[in-house]
Amino acid sequence: MNLRLVIRALGVLLLCEAAAMLPAVLISRGYGEDTVPALLLSILVTAVAGILLCLPQVKDKVIRYKEGFAIVTFGWLLVSLAGALPFLFAGVLPSFVDAFFETVSGFTTTGATVIPDVESVPYSLLFWRSFTHWLGGMGILVLALAVLPALGMGTFQILKAESPGPVSAKLTPRVSSTAKILYSIYLVITVAQILLLRAGGMPWFDSVVNSFATLGTGGYAIKNVSIGAYNNLYFEIVITVFMLLAGVNFSLYYLAVRKRSLSDFFHDTEFRLYIGIIAAYILIITLNIYGNNYSSLAESLRHASFQVASIITTTGFTTTDFNLWPDLSRALLLTLMFIGACAGSTGGGMKVIRIYLLMQYIRREVNSLIHPRAVKAIKVNNIPLQESVLTNVLGFTVLYFIIFIIAGLLLLTQKYDMITAFSAVAATLSNIGPGLGLVGPSTTCAGLTAFSKIVLSFCMILGRLEIYTVVALLLPQTWKR
Amino acid sequence: MNLRLVIRALGVLLLCEAAAMLPAVLISRGYGEDTVPALLLSILVTAVAGILLCLPQVKDKVIRYKEGFAIVTFGWLLVSLAGALPFLFAGVLPSFVDAFFETVSGFTTTGATVIPDVESVPYSLLFWRSFTHWLGGMGILVLALAVLPALGMGTFQILKAESPGPVSAKLTPRVSSTAKILYSIYLVITVAQILLLRAGGMPWFDSVVNSFATLGTGGYAIKNVSIGAYNNLYFEIVITVFMLLAGVNFSLYYLAVRKRSLSDFFHDTEFRLYIGIIAAYILIITLNIYGNNYSSLAESLRHASFQVASIITTTGFTTTDFNLWPDLSRALLLTLMFIGACAGSTGGGMKVIRIYLLMQYIRREVNSLIHPRAVKAIKVNNIPLQESVLTNVLGFTVLYFIIFIIAGLLLLTQKYDMITAFSAVAATLSNIGPGLGLVGPSTTCAGLTAFSKIVLSFCMILGRLEIYTVVALLLPQTWKR
Repeated sequence: MNLRLVIRALGVLLLCEAAAMLPAVLISRGYGEDTVPALLLSILVTAVAGILLCLPQVKDKVIRYKEGFAIVTFGWLLVSLAGALPFLFAGVLPSFVDAFFETVSGFTTTGATVIPDVESVPYSLLFWRSFTHWLGGMGILVLALAVLPALGMGTFQILKAESPGPVSAKLTPRVSSTAKILYSIYLVITVAQILLLRAGGMPWFDSVVNSFATLGTGGYAIKNVSIGAYNNLYFEIVITVFMLLAGVNFSLYYLAVRKRSLSDFFHDTEFRLYIGIIAAYILIITLNIYGNNYSSLAESLRHASFQVASIITTTGFTTTDFNLWPDLSRALLLTLMFIGACAGSTGGGMKVIRIYLLMQYIRREVNSLIHPRAVKAIKVNNIPLQESVLTNVLGFTVLYFIIFIIAGLLLLTQKYDMITAFSAVAATLSNIGPGLGLVGPSTTCAGLTAFSKIVLSFCMILGRLEIYTVVALLLPQTWKR
Repeated sequence: MNLRLVIRALGVLLLCEAAAMLPAVLISRGYGEDTVPALLLSILVTAVAGILLCLPQVKDKVIRYKEGFAIVTFGWLLVSLAGALPFLFAGVLPSFVDAFFETVSGFTTTGATVIPDVESVPYSLLFWRSFTHWLGGMGILVLALAVLPALGMGTFQILKAESPGPVSAKLTPRVSSTAKILYSIYLVITVAQILLLRAGGMPWFDSVVNSFATLGTGGYAIKNVSIGAYNNLYFEIVITVFMLLAGVNFSLYYLAVRKRSLSDFFHDTEFRLYIGIIAAYILIITLNIYGNNYSSLAESLRHASFQVASIITTTGFTTTDFNLWPDLSRALLLTLMFIGACAGSTGGGMKVIRIYLLMQYIRREVNSLIHPRAVKAIKVNNIPLQESVLTNVLGFTVLYFIIFIIAGLLLLTQKYDMITAFSAVAATLSNIGPGLGLVGPSTTCAGLTAFSKIVLSFCMILGRLEIYTVVALLLPQTWKR
C-alpha cells in the first residue's frame, strides 16, 4: 500500500470539498442568514486539513487497486466528517454523531435524516445537505468506473461499454476521460430536471435542491412531509421520471450519446428487467392499497408509482406515509429495498443485474440436477459471463444478508421492534432512507440511540461502496508494500 | 421415468402405512375409546388404495434417481393424504384441509398444529399423530441416505461415512443394509428416552408419544402448553438432551458403533459448529431474557436452553411463550430457525454444514479480492470439497430465501402482519412448528385461512425434501423415458 499517495489523494478530496462548500456561503448571504461564519469556519478547517494532507512528498504516483480501495473508503468517511462541520458549527445538529450521520447519509445518497423539523433549517444548510447527495452521486459514478471493476464487478459495470477485454490492474487515463463524459451527462440531466420543475411553478431554490436529491437518488427533502408537501401531480410525475432515469446504468446514456441511438436501452437485459419489476410492483401495490388506503384507483396508482420508483431507485422521497399501507405492500417495498437500481447508476441496493444473475444461477443449478455435466455459461446481453463474476455475485449476496442480519440484531439490542430494526438496516444498507415502523416516512432517525446511528452510518457506507471495497481494506495483504 | 415402478412403490408405502395405523387401534381399545371404527375404516381405505397401486406389472425394477425423486415427493404427499383419514373419520378435524395440514405437519416432523385444544383429543389419535413424527423421522434418514446424494448433497450426507468415492447412479443394496443399522440406532435411542422419562415419573403414554416427537424432531405435544405443562426440570433436561441427539448426523452414531469410539464426534466440523452455535445462542438469550421475563438467572438459563435446543433441532417443543420475549431474542430464534440441525439428522432447516460452507465461501471470496488466481478448495473434515457441492449449497440457499419471501408474500395477501406471515413460513419451511405473532407458542394455526394452510403445507414438504427433490420433479427431463 502506497500510503503517502492515499493521504495526498485524501488531501485533494478535502480541498475539493472545501471548494464545494462555497456555494452555500453565497446562498447564506443571498438569504441574509447568520450561517456565514459557521460555513467559513468549516471551509477553513477543511481546507487546512486538506493542505496538511497534501504536504508529504509522493514519489510513486501510480494508483493501483489497493490504493483505490483505501482512497474510496477513507475518502467517503473523511468527507462525511468534514461535511458535518457546517451542521455542527451552525448549531443545527449540536451532537457530532447526529451531524456525522446526516452527512454520511448525504454523501452515500441515503437520505435518512435526524432533523425532526427540516423546515426550520436555514436555506444555506439545506443547500449544503442536498448538495452532498449530488456530489455523492458523482462519486458513485467514478466508483463504478474505477474501483468496482477491481472487485470482479466490472464486467457488468460501466466499463463494459468501454473495453470488453481484460481489465488492466492500473487505473487508465481512459477512466478520467470517460468520467468527464459521465459527469457531463449527469449535469445535463440535472439541469433538465431543474428547468422542468421550475417551469411547473416550483420555486428556484426548491427546484435545485430537489433535483440534487433526485439525481443522486438521495432523497433529502426540504419539507417535513417530503414531496407530499407540494401535493402537485406535475411535480410528482417529473420527479418520478427523473428518479427512474437516475436509476439506469449511466453507460447506456453514454452509448446513446455516442451512437446517437436508443437501441442499447431496449437490448439491455438489466434495463428490461428494471422496467419489468417496476411495472409489476406498481400493479400489485396499486391493487393492494386501493380501497384500503385510498378511495380512488387513480390516487392509488399515483402513490404506488411514486413510491415504487422512489424505493427501487433507492431515492427515498415520499408523497404519503407508506408505513400505514397493508403489510403486503410494506413487505413488497422491503423486498424492493434489497433489489435496488441498476449497476452503474447513482442508486443503491443489490442492483437489478445481480438479481437477474441469481435467477439465472438458480435456473442453471436446477437444470444441472438432470444434466450434471452440461454446465453452460450464463449470458448477459448475449455475452457469456465469466464464472468468477457469478461467484462474486453469490458471495456478495450472502455477505449482504449476513450484514443485514448482524446489523439488525445489533439494533435489536437497543430494544426496537423487529420491523423497525430490520427495515432501518435495509433502508440504510441499500441507501434509501426511510424504513418502516419507528423509522417510517412520517418520522426521522432523530430518536434513535447514538449506538444505532453509528451502526446505521456504517451500513450506509458498506452498502454504498458495495461491501467488498470496505472488506478488501480489512485484509492484511492490502496493507503489505 | 419408470412410472409403473413409482406407482408400485407408492402402493407398498400405503400398505406399510395401513400397518402402521394398527397400534392406534390397540390404544383405542385399551382406553375404551369410540375411535375404533374410524381407525379401521382408515386402515381399510389405505390398504385398498395400496393394493390397487400394487396391481400393475413392473418389468424394470431398477430404481434410478429420477424414480427416487418421484417416490419421495409423491410418497410424502400420499401418506399425508391417507394419514389424514383417522382425524377426518373420527371427527377430530372435520375439515379435510385441516386434517391434511395436521398430517403433513406430522410426517414432515414440523409439529405445527391446527387443533386448538389438544387435551380433548382421544389417546388413539394423539398416538397416531405423534407416531407420524417418528415415522417421518425414519423417512428422513432414508431420504438422506438414498435420495439426497443424487442432488449433489451426498458428499456431506450420511453416505460420507460409507463410500468416499463417487456415488453410483443407482440405489445400491448397501443403502438398505445401512438403513437397517440406522433404524436400529434410531430405535435404541427412542427406547432409551422412553425409559428415562418413565423413570422420572412420566406416565407411559406420555413417555412414548413425547419420545416419538423428540426423536423425529417433530414437536407435537399432548398438552396445550406443550412440555411446559409438566413443569418438571428433569423431563426438560432429558428432552433437551434427546432433541440435541436427534439433531446430530446419524452417520456419527453409526461410526461410533462400528469403531466403538466417540472420536469422530470431536473431529467433525459440523458437530463442533453445532455445539458452538447452541452455546452462543443460549448465552445471549439467557442474558437478554434475564430480568426482562424471568427474575432468576437459573430460570432464564433453563428456558433459553430448552428453547434453543428445540428450535435449532427444529423440534418445536416449548416450555414457555417465547413470543413474549424481547425482540432481540425473538429475532435470534428466527435466525436459528434458518440454521437448523445437522445434515443426516432427523432435523430440518438449512443445516449447520451449509452455514459452515457459506462462511467458508465468503472467506475465500474475500481473500480472492487480493489473490484472484489462488482459489483453494474448501475442506470439510480435512477433505477437499468438490466445487459442484459448493455451487449446489449456494443455489440451495438462494432458493430457500426466494421460497421464504414468496410464501411470506402469499400469506400477507391474507392480511396477516409481517411477523406472523414470515415467521410462519420460516417455522414450516424449516419444519419447526411454532412461529411468532399469531402463530406463536401460545396459539395454533387453527385460525389461519385455508389458503394459508395449503401454502404452509407445501412449505413443510419443500423444506423437508430439501427443495431440490421437489424441484427436480418439475423439470420436463425428469419425465422423459
